[in-house]
Amino acid sequence: MKINSQRRDVFYVSDGTAITCETLGHVVLSQFSFIPDEKTFPFVDSTERAAEVFKEIEASYQHSGIKPLVFFSIVLPEVREMVCRAPAHNYDVLGNIVQKVQDDIQMAPQPQLQRSRSVGKDSESYFDRIAAVEYTLAHDDGITLKGLDEADIILLGVSRSGKTPTSLYMAMQFGLRVVNYPLIAEDLAAIRLLPEFEIHRHKLFGLTIAPERLSEIRENRLSGSDYASAKQCQLEVDTVEALFRREAIPYITTSSLSVEEITSRILERTGLKRSLFC
Amino acid sequence: MKINSQRRDVFYVSDGTAITCETLGHVVLSQFSFIPDEKTFPFVDSTERAAEVFKEIEASYQHSGIKPLVFFSIVLPEVREMVCRAPAHNYDVLGNIVQKVQDDIQMAPQPQLQRSRSVGKDSESYFDRIAAVEYTLAHDDGITLKGLDEADIILLGVSRSGKTPTSLYMAMQFGLRVVNYPLIAEDLAAIRLLPEFEIHRHKLFGLTIAPERLSEIRENRLSGSDYASAKQCQLEVDTVEALFRREAIPYITTSSLSVEEITSRILERTGLKRSLFC
Repeated sequence: MKINSQRRDVFYVSDGTAITCETLGHVVLSQFSFIPDEKTFPFVDSTERAAEVFKEIEASYQHSGIKPLVFFSIVLPEVREMVCRAPAHNYDVLGNIVQKVQDDIQMAPQPQLQRSRSVGKDSESYFDRIAAVEYTLAHDDGITLKGLDEADIILLGVSRSGKTPTSLYMAMQFGLRVVNYPLIAEDLAAIRLLPEFEIHRHKLFGLTIAPERLSEIRENRLSGSDYASAKQCQLEVDTVEALFRREAIPYITTSSLSVEEITSRILERTGLKRSLFC
Repeated sequence: MKINSQRRDVFYVSDGTAITCETLGHVVLSQFSFIPDEKTFPFVDSTERAAEVFKEIEASYQHSGIKPLVFFSIVLPEVREMVCRAPAHNYDVLGNIVQKVQDDIQMAPQPQLQRSRSVGKDSESYFDRIAAVEYTLAHDDGITLKGLDEADIILLGVSRSGKTPTSLYMAMQFGLRVVNYPLIAEDLAAIRLLPEFEIHRHKLFGLTIAPERLSEIRENRLSGSDYASAKQCQLEVDTVEALFRREAIPYITTSSLSVEEITSRILERTGLKRSLFC
């Protein structure tokens, strides 16, 4: 049976979590116009598991008459070969680059199962990561301002400017200890920096957002409220941006950015160390 | 000047967040024994930015006499070419695969700046993601058991078994709504499932952990406490695992697993849809 060629089955197969395969595959697929039907097989580290994957790929091909795409990352040769014998277009997301690095620097790789995200040998940095998530949770939305000495960065912004998701992403992916503090509507007339922040001025970073976008986001939460009104959003954004400028606090506009983009831009502006956990 | 060849400068250069470059680069480097000195250049989307990166790469080479490694992902040809003219070993993390997909499926790619993580056109799924993070935060550590209907999964486990970081990772990276509920020491004698969970039985999933590892993690937090003692940890783990078995709740052991691995294994066991946000 022929199926609409605008759709195509895509498989991610890895002997680890498959997250690297998915990450890379998504970026590759974003450049093509077909609609992918995706399926992920993590922890394929035996010929038994590989045989199951082989059957699934084969079934996809028999069902659609179209070869699926397979993005894979598998260290064990016998497992890899079994997956690659299935009727599909295969893409080794790492293999070619590892080979090229080996040739370029004349150093033999030491292939190991994809355990880059495992705790194992790097237990200390793993504890650091968990501690960063806990610190950030405890300092979300101004819950407490104790322990600011330990903060890597303090995010300021109006409600719904993206502080919480950005803070958690920075903690989870980069192991940073993030405080976030809301600049509240009622304070606007007398808006100023809290005295607690004075000695941590160098850690302050502002998030702002286009008033129209802010209104849209708040409407999504509290439709028809004053809180979501164009006027209120405009007032809050104007006031907060004036504060950022007056106090020389660096800031960025989050309007159409994802948490990954916001985080990347903050790290770039502040020079905070990027140490991605993966 | 020659520098210890056990170290080598590594650059990640992208016209987007560079997170894909870093992710792939880390996995590649994990297979080699040298120590990388890493630096990331995100948002390199103009020849001006490319010229800055060129200078940094050149300076690295002149300083060390060793060609650095450059993992890059850049769509604009003139930007890419400028980066690639620097004295380095270059690895295009996407280019070869995009070309190969094009050849295999006979479809021209539509190169675009690396905006796969941008909000833009896919605003709805972005709201879903933020909503998942907020739901998960609101349901962390048993804060509330309201709204369980909306939960994708309910994680159960003793204190320090990894529930909170796993929940937040599942929400942030896969857009899942996660409840986590602690099985508390004082409840152990009379441990049973809360009535609130009865109609959501199919969503329950247990996390457990080796008692020695649990004790180590708790010692790290409250050294010398009863809470961290080997005896207490053993008791809690035994009791909770007996509950999981008695109630036929699927569970995994988190002891030496990262949040990525725990998440991947849970998704595999439950069949929850994997839709990685990136």
